[in-house]
Amino acid sequence: MKHEYYMRLALEEARQAMLENEVPVGAVLVKDNRILVKTHNKKEVLQDATAHAEILAIREGGRILQNWRLDDCALYVTLEPCFMCASAILQSRIKTLVYGARDAKQGAIESRGTLLESNVYGNSLQVYAGYGEEEAAELLQTFFSINRNKETGLHCL
Amino acid sequence: MKHEYYMRLALEEARQAMLENEVPVGAVLVKDNRILVKTHNKKEVLQDATAHAEILAIREGGRILQNWRLDDCALYVTLEPCFMCASAILQSRIKTLVYGARDAKQGAIESRGTLLESNVYGNSLQVYAGYGEEEAAELLQTFFSINRNKETGLHCL
Repeated sequence: MKHEYYMRLALEEARQAMLENEVPVGAVLVKDNRILVKTHNKKEVLQDATAHAEILAIREGGRILQNWRLDDCALYVTLEPCFMCASAILQSRIKTLVYGARDAKQGAIESRGTLLESNVYGNSLQVYAGYGEEEAAELLQTFFSINRNKETGLHCL
Repeated sequence: MKHEYYMRLALEEARQAMLENEVPVGAVLVKDNRILVKTHNKKEVLQDATAHAEILAIREGGRILQNWRLDDCALYVTLEPCFMCASAILQSRIKTLVYGARDAKQGAIESRGTLLESNVYGNSLQVYAGYGEEEAAELLQTFFSINRNKETGLHCL
């Protein structure tokens, strides 16, 4: 139930991202059943290519704990992390990663990546996939569908 | 000469990092021969696992240009980027990467990685390696040597 609960909060953040015209990905960082950070992708609003939900959660988590080592923290994110975020998760020493939809194009956990297997950082990360997968994927599909229509001018009809 | 000049500035930043007791890595972001950002690793001072020199340069570059797309920008960094930074560089659409020392353990460009070859992002990044390599590597060796001695108490002798 714990994973479902925090993923639900991450999905709320993804919906908030959509309202802000950002790719809808949300993340929640938890330590000892305490929510440290709830955030979402802010690449457009911050004009920052690194402002994925996971990076913002890791940055803010370190600030709150006054420690970049996020030992015993769990990160919930609605989409499989990309290489940038997967590497950041490993380097921040997060203990548990729970994600929703798979990202066939950029996912660095199971879809495109071997980052965990290569064991560059020597950390052991517990990974749980597929929580809230359907809803997370649906949000993304809706977002990209709306934006494709915008590009083709169909939104004006 | 251009690459040598900007790498020299990046090495100055790496030395500044060392003075702040950070792993000595520096970076300079340039667009059209204009220096946008000079920065260095600030992981400890910010308590942020993502605060590598490259990430800080990309973030600040986006803020200055008010555009996360760093087209036509060149990034100079004293150490081969890790997976997090290499992926961020590709996603930010930086055109040219010039780096100094190789990182046999975590380097994602040539040492441990196939990120460029996997072409996840479909970008074409020009890469030049080995500029200022010797000095960059020496700074890192000195830093880790001092810190090893600290750990073993030898600095008290």
